[in-house]
Amino acid sequence: MGDPKGIGPEVIQKALASRSIRRICRPIVFGDAVFFNWKKSRSLSPKECGRLSGFYIEQAANAVLKGQIDAVVTAPISKEHLQRAGYPYPGHTEFLAALAGVRGVRMMMAGPRLKVVLTTIHEPIRKIPGLLSAPLILKTIEMTDASLKKWFGIRRPKIAVAALNPHAGEAGIFGDEEKKIIAPAVARAQRKKIHAAGPYPPDTIFHRAVQGEFDAVVAMYHDQGLIPLKLLHFEEAVNITLGLPFIRTSVDHGTAFDIAGKGVADPASMIAAIKTAVELAKRHHGRN
Amino acid sequence: MGDPKGIGPEVIQKALASRSIRRICRPIVFGDAVFFNWKKSRSLSPKECGRLSGFYIEQAANAVLKGQIDAVVTAPISKEHLQRAGYPYPGHTEFLAALAGVRGVRMMMAGPRLKVVLTTIHEPIRKIPGLLSAPLILKTIEMTDASLKKWFGIRRPKIAVAALNPHAGEAGIFGDEEKKIIAPAVARAQRKKIHAAGPYPPDTIFHRAVQGEFDAVVAMYHDQGLIPLKLLHFEEAVNITLGLPFIRTSVDHGTAFDIAGKGVADPASMIAAIKTAVELAKRHHGRN
Repeated sequence: MGDPKGIGPEVIQKALASRSIRRICRPIVFGDAVFFNWKKSRSLSPKECGRLSGFYIEQAANAVLKGQIDAVVTAPISKEHLQRAGYPYPGHTEFLAALAGVRGVRMMMAGPRLKVVLTTIHEPIRKIPGLLSAPLILKTIEMTDASLKKWFGIRRPKIAVAALNPHAGEAGIFGDEEKKIIAPAVARAQRKKIHAAGPYPPDTIFHRAVQGEFDAVVAMYHDQGLIPLKLLHFEEAVNITLGLPFIRTSVDHGTAFDIAGKGVADPASMIAAIKTAVELAKRHHGRN
Repeated sequence: MGDPKGIGPEVIQKALASRSIRRICRPIVFGDAVFFNWKKSRSLSPKECGRLSGFYIEQAANAVLKGQIDAVVTAPISKEHLQRAGYPYPGHTEFLAALAGVRGVRMMMAGPRLKVVLTTIHEPIRKIPGLLSAPLILKTIEMTDASLKKWFGIRRPKIAVAALNPHAGEAGIFGDEEKKIIAPAVARAQRKKIHAAGPYPPDTIFHRAVQGEFDAVVAMYHDQGLIPLKLLHFEEAVNITLGLPFIRTSVDHGTAFDIAGKGVADPASMIAAIKTAVELAKRHHGRN
């Protein structure tokens, strides 16, 4: 259900009212039914909101890990509320990874025309160059390749790897991470028979992918991948977590506290997230 | 003319053959007419190409500084060729700034739906946090405001300032440059009666600007601004230099050595760059 004070309850209610959703799955909401009434959440303190959002996530993760449900779809949470309640996670993705006992998950954002996978997620720009390594990037490429095959039914995915620096470092003049870290990772992926290429100049590779040259772009950091994704697919893209032992999708918007309770929230992203979760679950279980 | 071995000569020739160009200006090419014949440039060495491109730039800058011409439009150069010939500039923009004896120029990229101005240009990601300062960002905001008024005829420009870090730092959790550097710069601009706002999360601000909420976005670094710009306006955007004592526009593509001499280069960006230079020059001289 996400944060009870955000637009999560509202977009869930609107999405589940849609026949196109009820026809394809049996939805189970992990949350408190009372919060479908906006007035009931108004008096919650930030820490209560954080505690409740955390509890919903734990319950949903528990159910999917036991095989009681086929996939998890998450509504928006507030990182600030979550942290005030003592959950030390920068986001849903990291929280679910901890609950599942896995490390090294990746965030994919998928829209009709562009898919991106992030090598690093919630990190300050200052830390990015120090966090990147050839094994980390290779792992991202491998996870991208595997998910495109398994979940999207692409037999031989073509993966573009974005550079870190402008003009892909311009032969070392604007940075050397391309030569030292990214190119070696791409070469190792190629030796593993993955159809990966790069590192490409970040300012043109997304256009090339959209034109059909690649099935997905591996981005080095959050905004590198999400700026083009959200420009092209504002609130219609779906966030898919790679590396968890279960299927998890998410809306691509935040809690939008400013419009919560006004009845104006758009359920399009929640509907897209549920539909994508159903598609992935069907392919995963070979029921396509 | 740009690099004689690139597609500069070809796109110039194609653009100047267009009546829509010859009707609005008197074009003067700074270059060697012999290189309109592709075969004549084939034998040039990289260092000769760099020397010639540098010489053309110097001559054009000289003419515009003397008032002999109203604006400069540049065709693509090769930074590598230029550096081999001993010119220590990472790009045209920095070269022209040195010739004009000014510091602190900025690059604006303008397309029909989005305009961005870069606070830093040709720098490795690693260096960006250390290069940003409140005075640098304030100056970028002021130059953006002035150019939108003077050249684009917008009486009270609305300027969005992008954050550096994901989620605009998420209240300090993902970085503190927003609080320490960017927010103070925006506040100072506002005190100077500039309609600036931010810092905004980078992954959604470009969408908001495209929807009409802002006239331009001030970006912190090259790819932050150019990823959305080029996704939206591939090779139809125009590069405009702010802070030079003359009008300068440029194509938004590179030398494209791989297709040079094949006759397939698209002159659309050169045509757009010339038309924009003419518009700016008319407004500048009050001839609109």
